[in-house]
Amino acid sequence: MQKNNITRATLGRLPMYLEYIKANVTAETTSATEIAGSLGIGEVTVRRDLNLVCGQGRPKVGYPVKALVAALESVLGKNKLIPVVVVGAGKLGRALQNYDGFKKYGLEIVAAFDNDDEKTGVQSKNKPVYLMKQLSGFCKRNDVHIGIITVPTQTAQNVCDKMIKCGITAIWNFAPCPLTVPEGVTVRNENLALSLAHLNMVASGK
Amino acid sequence: MQKNNITRATLGRLPMYLEYIKANVTAETTSATEIAGSLGIGEVTVRRDLNLVCGQGRPKVGYPVKALVAALESVLGKNKLIPVVVVGAGKLGRALQNYDGFKKYGLEIVAAFDNDDEKTGVQSKNKPVYLMKQLSGFCKRNDVHIGIITVPTQTAQNVCDKMIKCGITAIWNFAPCPLTVPEGVTVRNENLALSLAHLNMVASGK
Repeated sequence: MQKNNITRATLGRLPMYLEYIKANVTAETTSATEIAGSLGIGEVTVRRDLNLVCGQGRPKVGYPVKALVAALESVLGKNKLIPVVVVGAGKLGRALQNYDGFKKYGLEIVAAFDNDDEKTGVQSKNKPVYLMKQLSGFCKRNDVHIGIITVPTQTAQNVCDKMIKCGITAIWNFAPCPLTVPEGVTVRNENLALSLAHLNMVASGK
Repeated sequence: MQKNNITRATLGRLPMYLEYIKANVTAETTSATEIAGSLGIGEVTVRRDLNLVCGQGRPKVGYPVKALVAALESVLGKNKLIPVVVVGAGKLGRALQNYDGFKKYGLEIVAAFDNDDEKTGVQSKNKPVYLMKQLSGFCKRNDVHIGIITVPTQTAQNVCDKMIKCGITAIWNFAPCPLTVPEGVTVRNENLALSLAHLNMVASGK
């Protein structure tokens, strides 16, 4: 499996393939042609996606279903959920923490952290909120390497620095400001306001 | 102003230019060189951005500050906030509704809608939540053309259809499913789970 070559678009289609196969395929083999036809996706696209995940299928036979399911589950992390923490237990942080969709991709937000005493304690659905000073111990005990920042701009860099000290190497930043990180740390900036503004601009230009 | 040519990246820098000029420029003219130097952004980039918003500056003089500020404010919709509605008053919908950052781009989520009686009524910060049946009247009275979908996948297409009937032509969809819309309606799909999964994949491939 060439995990590094999997694009965001391919990754986005993998849960569909897995769901389709599990729900519909009873034969021992399946093919890109069959999956493409059933899901209404281009055959070339499906063939390329499956090739990245599971290598080339056998001509005229396709893929053994068991091996394909195992390969998809491996990429999607179905065997073991990867733990994620969110810092900033405001509405957005709590919304992300309570969102179930991450499991489809093998990820789970296991805890939120905040400086505000009033926000801490175990909340609904057993989603705990802890104090910031507990972040380091929690990340080490639970082998956490992904963190989400949902604090205001003023404290985002400080939270980012703390996360890195705790061993976090991938940061999803919802604060609308750039973060400075050392080499080896990946940041994805999510500027929600800009996304909405750009949608408005594209739509009004039509 | 060639609004159609403004990319997401350019749009994202405009609030910085506006804030910088308003806070720091006291002369009657300013230039791409000055702004670029002060903000640590490449001069070519700033020159191209300003050209899109305000045409070419005068050689060796630059831009009249008043005209540049007016052009930036016009693109960023500072003169009149554009109203936006969100359907689905769960945690994510409410988080978006309470987020102040949209105003920077001239947008404001003026109301949320939900089928659930218990979620309706005016909430904190005067952010109202209304029943779905009030959507049509509200959109018409307030000339709303942008809607955000934060309902579960099962009801997303139904909400989308209702929004379009209410005159909404730009939809920001947080439900992890594709939407079918007629020509002239713009959809931006926001798959948060996929974003986190892709960040994890990129980071773990490093």
